[in-house]
Amino acid sequence: MNLVRDNILQTAGYIPGEQPTDTTTIKLNTNENPYPPSPKVMEAIQAVTAEQLRRYPSPSGQKFREAAAKVHGISPDNILTFNGGDELLSVAIRAAAGQTDDVAFLEPSYSLYPVLTDLNGSRAKKFSYTIDGTIWSLPKGIEKASAKVLLIVNPNAPSGHLDPLETLRHIAAGFSGLLVIDEAYVDFAPTSALSLVKEFPNILLLRTMSKGYSLAGLRFGYGIGQPALMKQLEKVRDSYPVDAIAISAATAALEDHTYAKITWQKVIAERTRLTAELQRLGFSMPASHSNFLLATAPPAGGRGAKELYETLKSRGILVRYWDLPRIHDKLRITVGTPEQNNHLLDELGKLV
Amino acid sequence: MNLVRDNILQTAGYIPGEQPTDTTTIKLNTNENPYPPSPKVMEAIQAVTAEQLRRYPSPSGQKFREAAAKVHGISPDNILTFNGGDELLSVAIRAAAGQTDDVAFLEPSYSLYPVLTDLNGSRAKKFSYTIDGTIWSLPKGIEKASAKVLLIVNPNAPSGHLDPLETLRHIAAGFSGLLVIDEAYVDFAPTSALSLVKEFPNILLLRTMSKGYSLAGLRFGYGIGQPALMKQLEKVRDSYPVDAIAISAATAALEDHTYAKITWQKVIAERTRLTAELQRLGFSMPASHSNFLLATAPPAGGRGAKELYETLKSRGILVRYWDLPRIHDKLRITVGTPEQNNHLLDELGKLV
Repeated sequence: MNLVRDNILQTAGYIPGEQPTDTTTIKLNTNENPYPPSPKVMEAIQAVTAEQLRRYPSPSGQKFREAAAKVHGISPDNILTFNGGDELLSVAIRAAAGQTDDVAFLEPSYSLYPVLTDLNGSRAKKFSYTIDGTIWSLPKGIEKASAKVLLIVNPNAPSGHLDPLETLRHIAAGFSGLLVIDEAYVDFAPTSALSLVKEFPNILLLRTMSKGYSLAGLRFGYGIGQPALMKQLEKVRDSYPVDAIAISAATAALEDHTYAKITWQKVIAERTRLTAELQRLGFSMPASHSNFLLATAPPAGGRGAKELYETLKSRGILVRYWDLPRIHDKLRITVGTPEQNNHLLDELGKLV
Repeated sequence: MNLVRDNILQTAGYIPGEQPTDTTTIKLNTNENPYPPSPKVMEAIQAVTAEQLRRYPSPSGQKFREAAAKVHGISPDNILTFNGGDELLSVAIRAAAGQTDDVAFLEPSYSLYPVLTDLNGSRAKKFSYTIDGTIWSLPKGIEKASAKVLLIVNPNAPSGHLDPLETLRHIAAGFSGLLVIDEAYVDFAPTSALSLVKEFPNILLLRTMSKGYSLAGLRFGYGIGQPALMKQLEKVRDSYPVDAIAISAATAALEDHTYAKITWQKVIAERTRLTAELQRLGFSMPASHSNFLLATAPPAGGRGAKELYETLKSRGILVRYWDLPRIHDKLRITVGTPEQNNHLLDELGKLV
C-alpha cells in the first residue's frame, strides 16, 4: 500500500469503545447519558419533511447556532456546528498544525488526540497529569509548551476531576497557540470555561450533544470561540457538516435543556451513591465531576481490573478498561441508571 | 489571526451554492433530484427510537455497508461510509497527499477540489478539459501527472459529458497515485467505473445519496475500493462518520433503488426535452449524462449568461453561474420537474 502517507500506514487508527447491538447488555463503557433524549427531539424528527431531505441543509446549521447563542448568551458568530465533537478536534488540529508542528495533550486522556495528531503528520507533545492520591490535575507550566495546539479535556478524562477556571485562565494567557478546552462532560460539572471565551481569542470550547443531551447516535457537536477564529475553522470544516434532521433534533434538544438538566441531576445523584458504594467495596477513586468514575480496583486479595472487566463483560455488563500505564489497575465506569448501577454493584460485590 | 496555518488564512474556503430557505424558489442550482426520496426513507426515519439516539451508532454504518454490497455485488469490505461525498474527498486527499505533494484535478470542475487541496497545504496540479465544440473530455496524458491524488468527476462537471470506461482504465493503469473517480452523477448515466475496482488497487469510487437518491439533506456518501485501501482510509475518516438516523434512512433508500430508478428515468426524459427546448431558444450545449446542463447563452443580440442568471433569480428561478474563465458565458441548469423546466423555459423565452 504505497498509496497513502507513511504516517497513515504507521498509525493504528482510533479504536472506538465497544458498541454492542443487543439491548440487553448493561452498557457503562462509552459515557452515554443513561436517560433518553427529550420527547421534543423525537417530535422534531417526526416533523422532518421529504422536501428537507431532498434539498441541501443549511451549511451553517443556522437554526442550531441561533438556539445555542440564546442558551449561552452569546452571538451566533461565536458558534460553529460539527459532525460530532470529533470533527471539531480534527478541524482544530488541521487548521492550526502543520507537518512539522507540535500538538500538545495529556496522556492518558481522550485517546483520539494522539490518533488525530499522527494522522495530521504532526508531532505529539505529551504531558502527564500531576497525580496526588487519586486526584489527577493539570501539570504546572503546561502553557509554556511550544505547540500550535493544546488539547485539554475538563472535567478531565479519564479521572473526572475538574480543574478550576483560574488554572485555565492562566494557561490561556500563557499559551501562544490554539487552546482547545474539550467540555464534552461539562453538563455534569458545576462550572464551565464559557466566560473565558470573551477574554481570550485563542480559546476554542468543544461542546457535544452526545453526553448531556443523550444524542450520541446523532453526531452533533459545536465549538464556541471568538468570531475571527470561527471564520477560519469554518473553512476547514466540511461544507455541510450536519444534516437537516440532525439540525432539527439537536436544536430541539438544546431548547429543552430543562429536560436535559433533570437527567444531569439524576446522574449526579447516582454518581455520589455509586462512588460511596464502590468505596465500600474497596475501590478508590477521586470525586468525579463527570458522568463516569475512574475506580482503582481493591489492592489486595481480589481480582485485578482487567479480570474484573472481563468477568463483568461475560455477565453482560460493559465497562471500559485500558491495559495502559497508570490506568491498568483501574476501570472507567459510566454512571448508569439506579437499576444499572445496582446490577454492577451486585456483580462487583461477588467478585471483590 | 496567527493561530491558524498560512494556507488556511490564504484560502477563501468553499462557497456552497445558494440554499434559499423559502419553498417558492424554483431551485435549479445545486443538482438535487427534483423528486422526493422513497416513502420507505420516511418510514425508516419514523422508526428510529430514542434508544438508538442515546447510544453511539455503528462506527462502520454496517447495515448500510451490507445493503450496498448486495446492491453492487461486492463485499462490505469494499465499502466505506462518509458524512457526504465531500468527507470522502477530504479524507482521500489527507490520506494520500502531504504538504509537499501534488493533487491533480481538472479546472473548472467541482470547485471543492482546489479548496481541499489548499486546506491540506498540498500543491494543486491543474489540467484543462479538451474542448471540442461543446464537448469537454479528459485530456490525453493526464495519467502521467506526478501527483499523489488525481480527482476526476465522471460524468464530468460542469459539462455533463461522460468519458468512456476505456479512458478511465487507461488512466488507472498509468497513474501511480490514488485515482478518485467521483461518480456523484452516475445514477443519471448509462455506465459506471464499478467494474474497474476489482482490476485496480488505486481506484476509489465516490458515490453519494445526495443526487440520485434525493437525500442531499442527509449528508451520506460512500466509497468503493479494494479492502486494503479502504482499511487505510477508515483510519483517516471520522470515527463515527454517519449517524444512526442517516444509516437507517440511507439504507432504506438504497434498498428501494427501484423507486429511485424511476426518478432517474423521469430526469433523463426531461433532460432530453430541456436540451431540445433550450437549443430551440438558441442555447448550445453538449449531450449531458448527468442531471444538469451546461448551456451556453445565445451568442448575439441577447443578454449575457450573467444577466440571464440575475434576471432569472429576480423572477424566482435559481440556476448556477460562475464568472470564471471558460464558463462565464454559460449557465449550469439542474434538470427539474416538467413544471419547473416549463417555468424556466417560459422565462428564458422572454429574455433571449
